[in-house]
Amino acid sequence: MQNRAIIDHVTPQINNGRFAVKRVVGQAVEVTASVFGDGHDYLRAVVEYKHEKAKKWQQAVMNCVNEGDDLWAGSFNVDKQGIYDYQVVAWIDQLLTWRNGFLKKQADGQKMDVELIIGANLLTATSKLYAKSKAKTITAAIKKLGGEEVAAIDYVLSPEFEQLIADFPLRQFETTYDHELQIKVGRHKEIFSTWYELFPRSASPDINRTGNLRDVIELLPRVEEMGFDVLYMPPVHPIGKRNRKGRNNATNAKPGEPGSPWAIGSDEGGHKAILPELGDIKDYKALIKAAGAKNIDVALDLAFQCAPDHPYITDHPDWFIWRPDGTIAYAENPPKKYQDIVPINFETEDWKNLWEELLSVVIYWCKAGVKIFRVDNPHTKPFRFWEWIISATNKQFPDVIFLAEAFTRPKVMAELAKRGFQQSYSYFTWRTSPAEMREYLEELSQTELKDYMRPNFWPNTPDILAYEMMGANSNQFVKRLLLAGTLSGNYGLYGPSYELGENRGNTTGKEEYYDSEKYYARHYDWSYRNRTTDAYTRLNRARQEHPALQQTNNIKFTDSDNDQLLSYIKWSDDRSNLIWTIVNFDHNNPQGGRISVPHELIVRQHFRVRDLLTGDIYQWNAGSNYVLLDPGKWPAHIFEVMD
Amino acid sequence: MQNRAIIDHVTPQINNGRFAVKRVVGQAVEVTASVFGDGHDYLRAVVEYKHEKAKKWQQAVMNCVNEGDDLWAGSFNVDKQGIYDYQVVAWIDQLLTWRNGFLKKQADGQKMDVELIIGANLLTATSKLYAKSKAKTITAAIKKLGGEEVAAIDYVLSPEFEQLIADFPLRQFETTYDHELQIKVGRHKEIFSTWYELFPRSASPDINRTGNLRDVIELLPRVEEMGFDVLYMPPVHPIGKRNRKGRNNATNAKPGEPGSPWAIGSDEGGHKAILPELGDIKDYKALIKAAGAKNIDVALDLAFQCAPDHPYITDHPDWFIWRPDGTIAYAENPPKKYQDIVPINFETEDWKNLWEELLSVVIYWCKAGVKIFRVDNPHTKPFRFWEWIISATNKQFPDVIFLAEAFTRPKVMAELAKRGFQQSYSYFTWRTSPAEMREYLEELSQTELKDYMRPNFWPNTPDILAYEMMGANSNQFVKRLLLAGTLSGNYGLYGPSYELGENRGNTTGKEEYYDSEKYYARHYDWSYRNRTTDAYTRLNRARQEHPALQQTNNIKFTDSDNDQLLSYIKWSDDRSNLIWTIVNFDHNNPQGGRISVPHELIVRQHFRVRDLLTGDIYQWNAGSNYVLLDPGKWPAHIFEVMD
Repeated sequence: MQNRAIIDHVTPQINNGRFAVKRVVGQAVEVTASVFGDGHDYLRAVVEYKHEKAKKWQQAVMNCVNEGDDLWAGSFNVDKQGIYDYQVVAWIDQLLTWRNGFLKKQADGQKMDVELIIGANLLTATSKLYAKSKAKTITAAIKKLGGEEVAAIDYVLSPEFEQLIADFPLRQFETTYDHELQIKVGRHKEIFSTWYELFPRSASPDINRTGNLRDVIELLPRVEEMGFDVLYMPPVHPIGKRNRKGRNNATNAKPGEPGSPWAIGSDEGGHKAILPELGDIKDYKALIKAAGAKNIDVALDLAFQCAPDHPYITDHPDWFIWRPDGTIAYAENPPKKYQDIVPINFETEDWKNLWEELLSVVIYWCKAGVKIFRVDNPHTKPFRFWEWIISATNKQFPDVIFLAEAFTRPKVMAELAKRGFQQSYSYFTWRTSPAEMREYLEELSQTELKDYMRPNFWPNTPDILAYEMMGANSNQFVKRLLLAGTLSGNYGLYGPSYELGENRGNTTGKEEYYDSEKYYARHYDWSYRNRTTDAYTRLNRARQEHPALQQTNNIKFTDSDNDQLLSYIKWSDDRSNLIWTIVNFDHNNPQGGRISVPHELIVRQHFRVRDLLTGDIYQWNAGSNYVLLDPGKWPAHIFEVMD
Repeated sequence: MQNRAIIDHVTPQINNGRFAVKRVVGQAVEVTASVFGDGHDYLRAVVEYKHEKAKKWQQAVMNCVNEGDDLWAGSFNVDKQGIYDYQVVAWIDQLLTWRNGFLKKQADGQKMDVELIIGANLLTATSKLYAKSKAKTITAAIKKLGGEEVAAIDYVLSPEFEQLIADFPLRQFETTYDHELQIKVGRHKEIFSTWYELFPRSASPDINRTGNLRDVIELLPRVEEMGFDVLYMPPVHPIGKRNRKGRNNATNAKPGEPGSPWAIGSDEGGHKAILPELGDIKDYKALIKAAGAKNIDVALDLAFQCAPDHPYITDHPDWFIWRPDGTIAYAENPPKKYQDIVPINFETEDWKNLWEELLSVVIYWCKAGVKIFRVDNPHTKPFRFWEWIISATNKQFPDVIFLAEAFTRPKVMAELAKRGFQQSYSYFTWRTSPAEMREYLEELSQTELKDYMRPNFWPNTPDILAYEMMGANSNQFVKRLLLAGTLSGNYGLYGPSYELGENRGNTTGKEEYYDSEKYYARHYDWSYRNRTTDAYTRLNRARQEHPALQQTNNIKFTDSDNDQLLSYIKWSDDRSNLIWTIVNFDHNNPQGGRISVPHELIVRQHFRVRDLLTGDIYQWNAGSNYVLLDPGKWPAHIFEVMD
C-alpha cells in the first residue's frame, strides 16, 4: 500500500482487456494512459511488452505529453505474428523528484551540502535495484556527489546525470495497470487486400458447358492483370438435392438446375467435399497453388448450415431442431421459409462435438492451403463459438484470416470483430453522400473501432445491388470502385457483374440483382475489357505501389468549397507516402471547387501532386487549390503528394 | 458455452466496477446496457440488485429502448444506506421467440397444430424452472394449448398469455455481465448541503477577547436564520508553537499571535485535542448538540499534517522524513518553504500503524458526533489511503460525509471522488463567463462524473479570493452566490468575509485575501445584516422548499438571445418541481433578452412563473419570453414554474 502512482484510461484496450487489440506485423502500438500521483513528486512510467514466445519483457519509456491532463504516451513496434502481452507500470521516482528540487533550490541560492548527501543516499538505494555490472556506473556517480561541492553540484546539474537517473530510475512502490492487455498480431493482408468474387460454375470459356475449378485457373492471369490478390468463390461443396431452389429463387428447382451454393451437403458429401461438377480436391489444391504463384489467396466460403440432405443430419440428428411431427426445422424468418437450408442448433447438448467437428472443417481446408475464410452470416451463430474457432485456428495457422459477412446492427458487427474476425463487411455499400461517407470513415478510423474492426468495402456482392446502383451509369460504377479502393485498405467486388455495369434490381423491390447468379450458372465473355476493368487496374496498381493506401486508419478529410467533392488524405505510418484523393459525388456533371491544404500534413508553400490514374502532374500551393472533376472522364483524382 | 446473449456497455459503472457508483437514499438507478444475441431469436434482460444486508436478489425488468442500437434499460430505487450489488442478466428466450413466430405464422394463415405442440413443450420446460406453487399456473396454460385448436390459438394470441410468459420466462443459458458492480448509497446531505465557514477564534462578541466554541454556539441562530445547514470551522486543534507563522504569513509569529490553525499539534496535543483557547471537548460536543437541534451539521477540518511540535513527531519519528543533518523535512515546494508544517511520509514502512492511527482520529471525532469532514489537501496523500479510511469509517458510521478540498488537475479531482469522497470542491470559483459555466455544468451532470463526483460550489474560501472577485461590487457578490446555490446542490461560503464584500487581494498577486484571517483572530459585528445576508436567506429558503434545487444533475440550459444571460432549468426526480434560473452575468448594467422555453420540459402553451427571490409572478408563453435583469436590484430570477 506504499505505492502511490495511479494508472487509468489506458489505450488501446478493448473491454478492459477482455479482447485483444489487433495489429499487423511492423505496426506501432501507441500506448497512452492517465498517470499521476498524490502530491508534487515526479513520476516515471513505462510500457512493458512481450511476445507470447519470448522469455523477457521489453520496455518502452512513456513521457508526459499533456501535463494538465496527466496524459502519458509511449510506443513500441510489433514485429512478429502471434499474441503480445503489454502493461503500463508507473511509480513515484524519489531520485527524479530530488533532482528537480535540487535544481530549484540551487537556482534559489540555497545551501546544497545536505542535498548532496540526500542525493547520494537515494543513489545508494537505486544501486541495490540493479545488477552489479550496472551498479558500477551508479557507484561512480555516488562518489562524485561525495566529492568537492562545486564539482558535485555541476555534476548533478549536468545532462549526463539526468541521463544516468533516466537509465537507472529508482523504481520502488510500483503500480501496474490492473487489467492484462493483449495484442494479436497478424499478417499485412489483414489490413490490405483486394478481392475479386466469381462463381466457378460461371467460369467456363465454353458456352456449351458450365465452369469448374480448372476453368478458374485459366482466369487467374486476368485476375492478376487487374491487380486483385484475393480470389473469392461462393461455396464449392456439394449442393443439396432435396428442396433445391430454382432460378430466381423458385421454391423448387427444375431438373438440371444447379441450386444455391449456400445450400451445402448432399449424398455427395458435406463441408469437406467438393461439388463433383466443379472438380475434386486435387483441382482445388491446383487452383490454390496456381493462385499462390501469382500472390493471390483463394478465399473459401465458410457457411455453417446444411441442405436437408447433408450427411450431418443423419450422422448427428441432435445438432438440429426436430419438430414434434418428425420433420426437421429449416431456416425461416416467419412468414419467409428457406426450405433448402437447415440451421445448426448451437444450443445442442452435444455442442462440444459440434464445435470440434466445425473446427475440423476449417483445419481441413487450412491444410489444403486455404488462408482466408469468408464467413457467411456469422451473426447467426454464437459469438463465443467464433472466438473459440478463430483462436484455435490461428494457434495452428497464424496466417489465416476470417472475414465476417455480417450486414447487421452496429453492436453486432463490432462484437464479431472483437471476438476475432480479422476483417468485416461494412456499411460502405449504403453510404452515398460525401457527408455520410466522411462520418462513417471517421467513426471507423477515430473511435475504438480502429483497434479491432478492419472494414472491407464492397460496392456490390451477389446478394446486394444497393438502391444507389440500380440504373446507375458507368461513371457511378467507376466512382464507387475508386471510393472503395482509396478509403479502405480492404475492398472487393463481385467482379464479372460489376464490370458489365449490371444495374437491374429484382422484382421484389429489395436490394438484389434481377435473375441472381446465385441460382444458375452464367456465361461471361472473360476476354471482356472496358472502362471499369481499366479503372480496377489503375486503382489496384496505385494501391500496390503506395503504402498510404494499404491501410484504413491514417486518414484525414480536408475541406472543399463544393459539397459534392469529398477530399481525403491518407499516409503511410512513416508519413513518407501521402495520397490525396478527391472524388466528385455527382456522377452526371463536372464539379469544380477549391480544396484546402491541411497544414499539419503538408507544410511546404509549394508542392506537386501527380494523379495516379492519369499520370498528370499539377503544381499546388499552400492554402487551397482548384480541381475540376468530369465524371465522364475520371470521377476522382488520386494524387500522390510529391515534393 | 450454450449461452448466446451478449451484455456490454453497462451504465452506470466506474472503471468496470472497480469503484462504486454513488447514490443517496430514495434515488433511482437507471441501468442501461447493450444486449443482443446471434440470429433473430428474442431476448430478455433483467437487472438484479441486492443491499449488502439483504439475503435475496431483487429484480427489475429491462426493456429494449433502441432496437437499432441494441440498447436496453431498466431501473430500481435504492432506499437504504450502504452498499448495493447489481448485475445485468440476459438470455435468449425460446418461449418468447416461439410466441412471436406463432403470431406471424398465424397471421400468414399457416397450419398451427404442430406449433401448439412446440409451445406446450416449451411451457413444460419452463414449468421445471419454477417452484411448484407457481408451476401450477404454467400447467394450466399447457392444458389450454393442448385443448381445442381455435381456443388454444386465441389463448396464445391473448395478452393474458403474453403476460404469463413475461412473468415466467424460459430462463436458460443465461449470461451475466462480467463485472461486479456496486452502488454506495448515502444520506441526502451528500447531494444537498449549504455550508457556512467561520473561524471560531473570530466568533467573540467582545472586542476585548478572542472567540471560542461557546461563542460559536451563540452564533447558531444567525447561521440558522440565513438558512445554512453545515457549519464548517478550520481546525480546532492545538496550533504548533515552533515555527509558528505570523500575521500576513510572516515567517515568525510575534508573541501572542495565534498562528495558522492548519499547523496542527503542540505540547497541548494533536489531532484528537482541542486548542485550549477555543475550549475543550465538552464545548465541542455542546456545539454539535446545539447545532444538531437546528439541523446543522458541524464539519471538522481534517488536515493530516503536523506542526513541528506535534506529539507524533516524537512518538512516531519514522512517520516523517528526516534529513541527513538530523532536521525534519518540512513542507516545501522549492523555493517556497512552509516551516510551520511537516508532511507525513506515507511511504513509511510503518504505514499500517500510521493508517490505523489516522483512522482512529476520524473515529474519535465521529464518536464525538461529527458527521462531516472537510478534508484538507487530500491530493497530497495517497489515493488508496483515502479509499480505505472512507470505507472503514462509513462501515461504522454510514452517515459520515467527506468533502475533498482539492483544487488541482481534473484527473486528480476525479480520482479522489472515485475513491469515495462524497463531495468535492470544484472549479466553479474560476468559471466566470456564461459559456464556461454552462460547459462546466454539462461536464459535471452529463458525463460519467455525474455518477461519482458531487461538486460543492464555493464563491470564496479563506484561501481563495478569485481574481474575478477582486474589487468586485455587491452585485457581483450576490450574483456569484445565487449562481452557486442554484447550479449546485452543495454550496458554501466563507461567510463573514463574503457578507462584508471583502474584495482586496494580497500583495503577492495571488488569488488570496489581503491580511488573511488564517493568521490572526478577527472581530466581526455579528449583528450585521445587509443585501448579501438577505440574498443568502432568500436563496437558502428557496433551496429548502424546492427539491429541484436539492441536487445537481437534473439540469438543462436553455437558449437566450443575449449572451450575458445564462438560463437553466432544474427539476426534481419526479419532475413535479421545476425551477428556472436566469442570471445576468453583467454585474454593472441591466440586461434583457428573450429566453427559449424547452418544449421537452414545459409542454403547456401558457404558464406562470413565480420569482422565489421577490415573489413576483409572470404570465409566460410557449416559445420564448422576455426578461430584464437589473443587477442593482437582483442579478437573477429564480422562478418556480407553476401551472
